Amino acid sequence: MKATIERATLLKGLSHVQSVVERRNTIPILSNVLIEAQGGGSLRLMATDLDLQIDETIAAAVDQPGATTVSAHTLFDIVRKLPEGSQVELHAAEGRIVITAGRARFTLATLPRDDFPVIAEGELPTSFELPAETLKQIIDKTRFAISTEETRYYLNGIFLHVTDEAVPLLRAAATDGHRLARVTVARPDGAEAMPDVIVPRKCVAELRKLLDEVDGSVGVSLSGSKIRFDLGQAILTSKLIDGTFPDYSRVIPTGNDKLLKLDPRSFMEGVDRVSTIATEKTRAVKMALDRDKVTLSVTSPENGTAAEEVPGDYAAAPFEIGFNSKYLMDILGQIEGDLVEVHLADAAAPTLIRENDKSPALYVLMPMRV
Amino acid sequence: MKATIERATLLKGLSHVQSVVERRNTIPILSNVLIEAQGGGSLRLMATDLDLQIDETIAAAVDQPGATTVSAHTLFDIVRKLPEGSQVELHAAEGRIVITAGRARFTLATLPRDDFPVIAEGELPTSFELPAETLKQIIDKTRFAISTEETRYYLNGIFLHVTDEAVPLLRAAATDGHRLARVTVARPDGAEAMPDVIVPRKCVAELRKLLDEVDGSVGVSLSGSKIRFDLGQAILTSKLIDGTFPDYSRVIPTGNDKLLKLDPRSFMEGVDRVSTIATEKTRAVKMALDRDKVTLSVTSPENGTAAEEVPGDYAAAPFEIGFNSKYLMDILGQIEGDLVEVHLADAAAPTLIRENDKSPALYVLMPMRV
Repeated sequence: MKATIERATLLKGLSHVQSVVERRNTIPILSNVLIEAQGGGSLRLMATDLDLQIDETIAAAVDQPGATTVSAHTLFDIVRKLPEGSQVELHAAEGRIVITAGRARFTLATLPRDDFPVIAEGELPTSFELPAETLKQIIDKTRFAISTEETRYYLNGIFLHVTDEAVPLLRAAATDGHRLARVTVARPDGAEAMPDVIVPRKCVAELRKLLDEVDGSVGVSLSGSKIRFDLGQAILTSKLIDGTFPDYSRVIPTGNDKLLKLDPRSFMEGVDRVSTIATEKTRAVKMALDRDKVTLSVTSPENGTAAEEVPGDYAAAPFEIGFNSKYLMDILGQIEGDLVEVHLADAAAPTLIRENDKSPALYVLMPMRV
Repeated sequence: MKATIERATLLKGLSHVQSVVERRNTIPILSNVLIEAQGGGSLRLMATDLDLQIDETIAAAVDQPGATTVSAHTLFDIVRKLPEGSQVELHAAEGRIVITAGRARFTLATLPRDDFPVIAEGELPTSFELPAETLKQIIDKTRFAISTEETRYYLNGIFLHVTDEAVPLLRAAATDGHRLARVTVARPDGAEAMPDVIVPRKCVAELRKLLDEVDGSVGVSLSGSKIRFDLGQAILTSKLIDGTFPDYSRVIPTGNDKLLKLDPRSFMEGVDRVSTIATEKTRAVKMALDRDKVTLSVTSPENGTAAEEVPGDYAAAPFEIGFNSKYLMDILGQIEGDLVEVHLADAAAPTLIRENDKSPALYVLMPMRV
């Protein structure tokens, strides 16, 4: 195998693939990137952790087609340090690859390409397109609620499912039991028969990074066990989480009759300020609701007390409720408009937060005793 | 005590003092900042770790003079989150301080000012001025060589001493046994009878941060056991390291007859590149010197090999020598001009590195067997 690539092109491709490769691997070849020089003037880079696979194609001058595998992180570190604008020559033969650029020359050990594991996609009967912007929104507005508890593995991802109502919808949801985030968009053509799937956290994270470089549409194909995102230059394939996502719709309150409307920015800044003195353990902030104002407060036996009044529209009976300040700020950070609606019932009931009844995103937050 | 301060002014002052306060303290009052509202319209902030003390004065509207102490990190975190441009009111009474800004109000526990330990400076008979720029240079060009080995406590700082030659000098030196950095400047007036002192690493670090905000001159006063830096708004006082710095002048080679001259930038980048594949443990880079070129190389049993040729002026006999790549890069990173002189003797002898024979800074690096 012999090919020459512009350093910036190679670096960008490697930055994508090395991010999929885990730092510590018991199986040596999983530390490697598969490099395949193809006749048509392109170089294919592939990496996998056996659950997630990235397959990226970049332009290269190919002298001699062929393939090999080499440590992804070492190659990435080398290319990162090569002079800007240099041409990088890759030449693999006899269990080694020689990387040359300018006056620098590196020789690294390789492993045979035939040992490199490729995720068998099988058939992916459901196939549709989503604008990259929509996919970004879905991820940004839900991923913070993904559970990190490994024992509840079925919550370690974003749940995607379609509905068959008069206006058919595609819904994305994530929850860790304390908060729930849901985004709803129109069901794209081709998603009619889509099975319910849970996309794992790592796939979500890698996809989100790649989306920053994508305009236009992303092709999504899936079966009940695999999902594939076609981003043009890069293709991301992931196993899905084999589990049942709980029926989250039952958690979304419908009868919360106390409505608070306020500026999400002032609200969030107030929560951030008073929570300065909260201890790491509790992070609880108390909200005392009264006519057209909320008083946020935190009491820490260790540090002291903090209080701040935030103006808002509120006409229901005064009462007090507590929330985890970090969870509350996570949600408020996703509100884009100048007003946020907080629908409350009582101090023990799940609270609904959304921009308004037209907004695609909706959040449910469980209160804390304060 | 009652005073009102502009948030930005208070934040800047607190950012300096909180940096001296250690995160974990067994003595509670060492976590606190002393706040003293003074009649003349100023607020004094003090913090200490018993070895280093900062004393900063900022402008404030004082309603009621007085003093108290409160957790430095908590107060800093609060002020950091207050809205930009707000006025902060501090009101201390009866074991508590109330901090008010806009609609936010914090109450924190205080400890009495009388319990706050102040470093007794004693007499500081030597006193001189140094331009802030000179002090920055002294620190930047030596601090990376300060030893972090606690058992060799006498190397945990920058050694300052004066000479009494025809042209009297002030010298600063730091070493960890593997490398030595020395900066020489003209001896300032007033430093004639200065005792040899070792300024501890933490004092050096805090001083360097404060210097970024200082133009003009810094007043330095010292005795054999204490040093004081007067930076105008802030005064930094530190105990000195009670130990004997080794006679480092014997380590500086004078007879190295093999001279290599090259561009420090290309040299450093080449070392950085080939060391990519060096293992964490050794970090050794080999330099093979030959007529007008150096070949840098690294061999790693784990990763492979790397080599790069760097052009340079060299006319002596070819030979090979090894260095710790990180140490070499630390030194090259301090060379400002377009040429660096490397004075070599043989593969086992200390090597002298400097910009030229006029430059105030000089470095000695011990070779490694490669």
